[in-house]
Amino acid sequence: MSRTSRTVIREIAEDDWVEFFPTFTEVIEAGETYAFPVGLSIDEARGWWLESPPGVTVVAVDESGVVLGSAKSGPNRPGRGSHVATASFMVSSAARGHGVGRALGEWVLAWAREQGYAAMQFNAVVETNVAAVALWQDLGFTIIGTVPEAFDSRGHGRVGLHVMHQHL
Amino acid sequence: MSRTSRTVIREIAEDDWVEFFPTFTEVIEAGETYAFPVGLSIDEARGWWLESPPGVTVVAVDESGVVLGSAKSGPNRPGRGSHVATASFMVSSAARGHGVGRALGEWVLAWAREQGYAAMQFNAVVETNVAAVALWQDLGFTIIGTVPEAFDSRGHGRVGLHVMHQHL
Repeated sequence: MSRTSRTVIREIAEDDWVEFFPTFTEVIEAGETYAFPVGLSIDEARGWWLESPPGVTVVAVDESGVVLGSAKSGPNRPGRGSHVATASFMVSSAARGHGVGRALGEWVLAWAREQGYAAMQFNAVVETNVAAVALWQDLGFTIIGTVPEAFDSRGHGRVGLHVMHQHL
Repeated sequence: MSRTSRTVIREIAEDDWVEFFPTFTEVIEAGETYAFPVGLSIDEARGWWLESPPGVTVVAVDESGVVLGSAKSGPNRPGRGSHVATASFMVSSAARGHGVGRALGEWVLAWAREQGYAAMQFNAVVETNVAAVALWQDLGFTIIGTVPEAFDSRGHGRVGLHVMHQHL
């Protein structure tokens, strides 16, 4: 039985946020995948991860309730761009390689279709994050273009950011 | 003597913002160029147009002090993306076709170079805004890719958004 078969995805609760926050910090400080501010407190970080309606933030938890990762989704732009969704994902280092990111990705795509979004766009997928790029392509996204040297990766220096997209 | 030769570009003051706000509203309500929220009050709109350091917002004014347009610039992303600038531009309908957008574009590019940015990226140039696309190409930008049907144009329906970029 695979780990993902026991993964539950549900809206994030306050306890989940407290449990997930070290992963949020770890992912940003690793410096390989997200251009978020460094050194945010748990309260400052809320504004970067906890979506308000019409957006949503969820967690993936295992059968014992341990938070494995989180995703958030909502309109990529307001007004005349609000028919296109965007999303972000983080999986704890201990849980990687077990399909948690895929489960979150599938959940978010289903949610966005249900909400009536016409498409989903990722604005900044780091090109050296090859596992993520391959996963998103497997889930139907294509690379619209790559902004060269737009992310200052800790390990790779300045690398490109893919804009990825799929119609829903 | 062309109009632009008499155009002065300077940091926006409170009086300028009050004078510029009807143009801000007119541009958004025209529904052809910006995916900003519709119906913002002058105070709500501040957060969408008035940049705080390290960003900047400027106005272009003619020789009698009339505000012709405005531009804002700053980091496109925080953290590991903050070496890339972005910018936005609006010119009042009465002042279009006289080089105000070009003057603002040249000013912003010079400012970004001076601030040490490595590149400038526009995230969402509406493909049917052909005057803007041509101007940015003339000022050195290239189209990295076009997100299809990502902008709900009032006149054209769903049209693409160009991601445009240049190294500085």
